[in-house]
Amino acid sequence: MKEKRTLMLPGPTPIPEEARLAGAQKIIGHRGVDCEELMEEVTENLKYVFQTENDVLVLTCSGTGGLEASIANTLSAGDKVLSLCTGAFGERYATIAERYDIDVERMNFAWGEDIDVDRVKARLAADQEQEIKAILMTHNETSTGVINHPAPIGELAAQHNALLLVDAVSSIGGIELKTDKWQADVVVTSSQKALMSPPGLCLVSVSPQALAATQDSDLPKFYWSFQRAKERYERCYQTPSTPALATLYVLREVLREIREEGLENLFQRHQLVTRALRRGVEAMGLELLVAEEIASKTVTAIKLPTDVEYEAVEQRLREQYNVYITGSKGKLKGKVFRIGHLGNVSRSDILSTISALEMVLNQEGFEVKLGSGLAAAQKVFHKEERR
Amino acid sequence: MKEKRTLMLPGPTPIPEEARLAGAQKIIGHRGVDCEELMEEVTENLKYVFQTENDVLVLTCSGTGGLEASIANTLSAGDKVLSLCTGAFGERYATIAERYDIDVERMNFAWGEDIDVDRVKARLAADQEQEIKAILMTHNETSTGVINHPAPIGELAAQHNALLLVDAVSSIGGIELKTDKWQADVVVTSSQKALMSPPGLCLVSVSPQALAATQDSDLPKFYWSFQRAKERYERCYQTPSTPALATLYVLREVLREIREEGLENLFQRHQLVTRALRRGVEAMGLELLVAEEIASKTVTAIKLPTDVEYEAVEQRLREQYNVYITGSKGKLKGKVFRIGHLGNVSRSDILSTISALEMVLNQEGFEVKLGSGLAAAQKVFHKEERR
Repeated sequence: MKEKRTLMLPGPTPIPEEARLAGAQKIIGHRGVDCEELMEEVTENLKYVFQTENDVLVLTCSGTGGLEASIANTLSAGDKVLSLCTGAFGERYATIAERYDIDVERMNFAWGEDIDVDRVKARLAADQEQEIKAILMTHNETSTGVINHPAPIGELAAQHNALLLVDAVSSIGGIELKTDKWQADVVVTSSQKALMSPPGLCLVSVSPQALAATQDSDLPKFYWSFQRAKERYERCYQTPSTPALATLYVLREVLREIREEGLENLFQRHQLVTRALRRGVEAMGLELLVAEEIASKTVTAIKLPTDVEYEAVEQRLREQYNVYITGSKGKLKGKVFRIGHLGNVSRSDILSTISALEMVLNQEGFEVKLGSGLAAAQKVFHKEERR
Repeated sequence: MKEKRTLMLPGPTPIPEEARLAGAQKIIGHRGVDCEELMEEVTENLKYVFQTENDVLVLTCSGTGGLEASIANTLSAGDKVLSLCTGAFGERYATIAERYDIDVERMNFAWGEDIDVDRVKARLAADQEQEIKAILMTHNETSTGVINHPAPIGELAAQHNALLLVDAVSSIGGIELKTDKWQADVVVTSSQKALMSPPGLCLVSVSPQALAATQDSDLPKFYWSFQRAKERYERCYQTPSTPALATLYVLREVLREIREEGLENLFQRHQLVTRALRRGVEAMGLELLVAEEIASKTVTAIKLPTDVEYEAVEQRLREQYNVYITGSKGKLKGKVFRIGHLGNVSRSDILSTISALEMVLNQEGFEVKLGSGLAAAQKVFHKEERR
């Protein structure tokens, strides 16, 4: 019998048992009362998770589709935007905007570092004509495991009358994002990350300012038009096209579990497993890519020791221990591996992963004292229990 | 205990039990071997259903998204297209193209009739400069229940060096569409119709001509770029973004069942239930909207008797018998109701629906001899059994 799977990807993430089974319920019509109840509950609970009073629109697509929608709905061809890039997903957001003939100014930061707010502030100050219509940022840069704080950027954007569009695909539900308080105009997340549901849904909060901007937008769109979505949303929480109903069944169940746990506990759980993983990995003699203060609470990037091949580690973890991790992208490819720890992640998952990693690294010639990483992680859990 | 639900919508449709439960399987990574096996099996079986050697791309969106993708990928702003409109969905296809600044010429046909091929032929003959770059058509017009035959249009399009883009959302898997033989360049369907899966996936076949056209297209797109999809497809059947994995689990199971039944039997089953429903409805004294030769095999539109309100019939069917039907759209709204019979539809479903309808119509003051519709449907089934 194969050992049970430990899926430690930055998404898709494991779905809680009850929620998973809820997805197998019989299908219903998408224009009836049953669907209205489903959509109302999901939408209202999403507002709780997004910490917003804004509309949260339900799109049937992946997170990338929602990012594209955020551009296509609020901007026009030739508009200038400032794109804050701290990794592969920041670059992707910029690329999507470029495909729409947006005049994208990329402000690049080192991979593994967060956004330098002073540089953003200086750039906006220099834009005296207020040509910059929007700022694009990645809340949790999945490729490096860095958190960029939206609050100071939201404040600068508001002062500049620019919209703040936030890729929160791998953060919402795992890392706090106070949509309203931090003045994020569009926040995009997807179902298969910290929201622990199957892939296929994209959840997008849209501020009144962003909705107003849709009036001026000349970019082509139909399927994910915010205006069409908003119109249907006003009519019994409907969607313009048939939504991913079975995924909504799962998400409804997950959101109930999230409300039961409470956002505060949820964020603390993510912090705890992150701390344990980081201490464990360090105790093994590995080096973390990202400094403690800006480290993601949903994904951790770890430098590969010299002479250890990523492919070999990944394959052994998977084949010998059924533990799934992933590599990195772009300039970090082959130099870093990443462990996702978001959504339905437990202390046991962290321990299984550390244990497997200790053994695999030894097999690959990087000497680790067995149990050293485990003990370090355990200490974090133990300390937490005694609080 | 509430009577079991009889979902007779033109989509979403009931999902076969085993397939539905398959959707509750644990989630996997979308870049690994498990996903490659899943995608390969699904893709190859889709080619069987589409009757094509073309690539069948898997997009995570509803059918509307796929229709938009067919426009955004193969055309450029200002291109002229001929849009053949026989109902609300034909009009929607034209509207999507218009949003992309396509020069859309709508050729309208009466609602309840099919495309008049001679008119199309004459129009193309008049287009001596071959300005018309593509023809848009709806295979099965869901709003009226009419089948438009793609073969003659495909032939005309090919002669004219124009692409044929086909909305086959409510046909593929229920009504024959010979993609290659009939020269359909792009064929779009979605998971929640005759493919009996949850909504959220759009399946799109793309001919070499259509792929070549993507090179010249200047319309903005990223998420559903056929080129990005094709590139990933060549790498182990991957998709550019995380696909709707749980829906793919269901679709895999459904496609196995479809292969087991065989396309020929599948189409015959749809023809049989259609015939039984039509005979039953006529025997009740109701009038069908569409003539026998062009009648859809997945959805039937029935004229409401004078003085009978659609809302009352719909509500009684739903509340008293748990039978779900739907109204129509646009100019047929309030005059016609529709019964979907596609995918996982059985003789029992037809009988339950006719029986409930007989009783409800009597309650609403339209006199029907109880059992008259049932006997007529039964005769169709009985005759089939004796063949």
